[in-house]
Amino acid sequence: MASQNLRTPGPTPLPAAVREALARDMVAHRGPEFAATLDECIRGLKWAFQTEHDIVVLTASGSGGLESLVPNTLSPGEPLLAVSIGYFGDRLASIGRAYGVDVVPLRFEDGQAADPQAIAEQLTARPDIQTVFVTHNETSTGVLNPVLAIAGAVRQVRPDVLLLVDGISSVGSVGVQPEAWGLDVVVAGSQKGWMIPPGLAFVAISPRAWERQRRAKLPRMYFDWQLHKKSAEEGSTPWTPALSLFFALQEGLKLMREEGLERIFERHRRIGQHTRQLLANLGLRLLADPRFASPTVTTAWVPPGVDAKALLRRLHDRHNVVLAGGQGRLAGQILRIGHLGWVDEADITRAAKALEIELEAAAGADRSAA
Amino acid sequence: MASQNLRTPGPTPLPAAVREALARDMVAHRGPEFAATLDECIRGLKWAFQTEHDIVVLTASGSGGLESLVPNTLSPGEPLLAVSIGYFGDRLASIGRAYGVDVVPLRFEDGQAADPQAIAEQLTARPDIQTVFVTHNETSTGVLNPVLAIAGAVRQVRPDVLLLVDGISSVGSVGVQPEAWGLDVVVAGSQKGWMIPPGLAFVAISPRAWERQRRAKLPRMYFDWQLHKKSAEEGSTPWTPALSLFFALQEGLKLMREEGLERIFERHRRIGQHTRQLLANLGLRLLADPRFASPTVTTAWVPPGVDAKALLRRLHDRHNVVLAGGQGRLAGQILRIGHLGWVDEADITRAAKALEIELEAAAGADRSAA
Repeated sequence: MASQNLRTPGPTPLPAAVREALARDMVAHRGPEFAATLDECIRGLKWAFQTEHDIVVLTASGSGGLESLVPNTLSPGEPLLAVSIGYFGDRLASIGRAYGVDVVPLRFEDGQAADPQAIAEQLTARPDIQTVFVTHNETSTGVLNPVLAIAGAVRQVRPDVLLLVDGISSVGSVGVQPEAWGLDVVVAGSQKGWMIPPGLAFVAISPRAWERQRRAKLPRMYFDWQLHKKSAEEGSTPWTPALSLFFALQEGLKLMREEGLERIFERHRRIGQHTRQLLANLGLRLLADPRFASPTVTTAWVPPGVDAKALLRRLHDRHNVVLAGGQGRLAGQILRIGHLGWVDEADITRAAKALEIELEAAAGADRSAA
Repeated sequence: MASQNLRTPGPTPLPAAVREALARDMVAHRGPEFAATLDECIRGLKWAFQTEHDIVVLTASGSGGLESLVPNTLSPGEPLLAVSIGYFGDRLASIGRAYGVDVVPLRFEDGQAADPQAIAEQLTARPDIQTVFVTHNETSTGVLNPVLAIAGAVRQVRPDVLLLVDGISSVGSVGVQPEAWGLDVVVAGSQKGWMIPPGLAFVAISPRAWERQRRAKLPRMYFDWQLHKKSAEEGSTPWTPALSLFFALQEGLKLMREEGLERIFERHRRIGQHTRQLLANLGLRLLADPRFASPTVTTAWVPPGVDAKALLRRLHDRHNVVLAGGQGRLAGQILRIGHLGWVDEADITRAAKALEIELEAAAGADRSAA
């Protein structure tokens, strides 16, 4: 069976070397083989995150990494400015509320980026806020937030605020510079640009975030970053790690090093451009403000009269092409195409060709029904 | 390279069919392929857990599954009777304390089982306790608790108490009957008897536990059982699942069904017996009370004068045999041999032969040093 042209914004397809690594037999997770793997993974992650900050690897999906932000940095009732430009930004606000944090939401319209000035104003109005969360790349709308500008505006008003960043669908595909940009914590997820399966979350933690962690009082154990750091220094993890995914990560990072970071970032920019062009050629209206269009995910409105769910099903059943639909209030209204990780222009061209055929068929059906 | 004779109590070796499943390419986690996989996994797990209770699958190690017990069943300050017979029982007590639960510890000596009568007495003395935790198989000492007798004693004193069971290194290898025995929640971990890698935790949840969950107030999101149940009804998971491990689970369960549950349980009993016999033949003193010796893990005291760490290293370096050492206060004092999952007598015989050679070498070195 020909493998799927899987173009969701994660999981993403796996190169052969990664699949071979996944098939490796187990080793002891407290032995020298795993210690070497863990060390290589953490060094590779630091390279891709472009940081010297500590990085911990959690056996959890990206949402687990996101959740870890809350109990590791906050105490009950403490305010958190939760900047959101979509579904995943909203999710962090929900997590904060579930933990009893005083969530101060700052929501921007779907398709738009966050406005650095509005964030700075909110911080000026609420001098008690010591923690800000922002999404780098919003996977639900295909918008890349200007995190450098946001961090700059935040630091101008409040130099010591803790800045938490969801980099799940950006880091590894888009350049991030935690130190230079002043990002205290950056979270990433394995099933995105890393070309490996879901199940690991990566968290880069600044010295200021470590200091904050020491007085953060919300309950944590499985997601406690300090326990992971301490174990990593001994070549291990506090809880049995998902070994197969670490083997895969080791291979994924090797492939990434062979390509080189700048070339990876350039490839994602180029394919993002290519994807938007193809969708525009099909007459689709894009959701994301073009100034902030994401290099990893593109979203487009489903044309009026077309059933989004049926369209996705036909792409799957007839063309072996898998795209994603909208989430939350965008469900049924948009299509999402992932173009991150192991992807080139031809993959997207083939997916767009299938989409063209099915959009034409849907338009024809619509006409004959009318 | 010949693969290791990996005899730790998890991770355990992987059969070829499982390794092939791990190497499968990704599919969309909101699509029909994964829905079918998830459904098959949950049906297979219910078969192995011998239960009609709901089962949720968490992308996390067993420790994550264990942690999920606390926020899903308890509220801040509520008492929890934490029965412990070793390191992993103690861990649950630590998790409870980290979450602000009023942990009432009831610790039995390493190597001993929990005394049902002592548990009943504690419940009589503390009528405010509504939740009891107990380990089924304590992986750190190789003791199988008499959970049926414990549950009976608990129910006699307090019919409605919520009984939480760590079945991480028992379920799938040892018979457990949640309904018949009156166990409200039972947790298992993928890297044990299931012949697949670490990274998934399975939780079987009784109607009484669901009722309790609705009023449990500790913060939870990633580990919220209800979100997993709701998503599973729609053929999905609330957070991106570790797809590769689900593919592996599907295969592992197929292999288990081919062998049959009773034969699996009998094989583990037989190999446990075989392991204890071989270690006794080597003159090693076993830690576990023989009346409660585990069918999945055997522990033995390291003979006086033998450096446990060096012994384990020589077994690894010279024989490609991997055993585990002691944890917590037993570190450096005991050896642990895992005999669960994909294992037969010959695997253990080979490991014991290597152990014999190295114990003799260590005794010789000790004599010449004296």
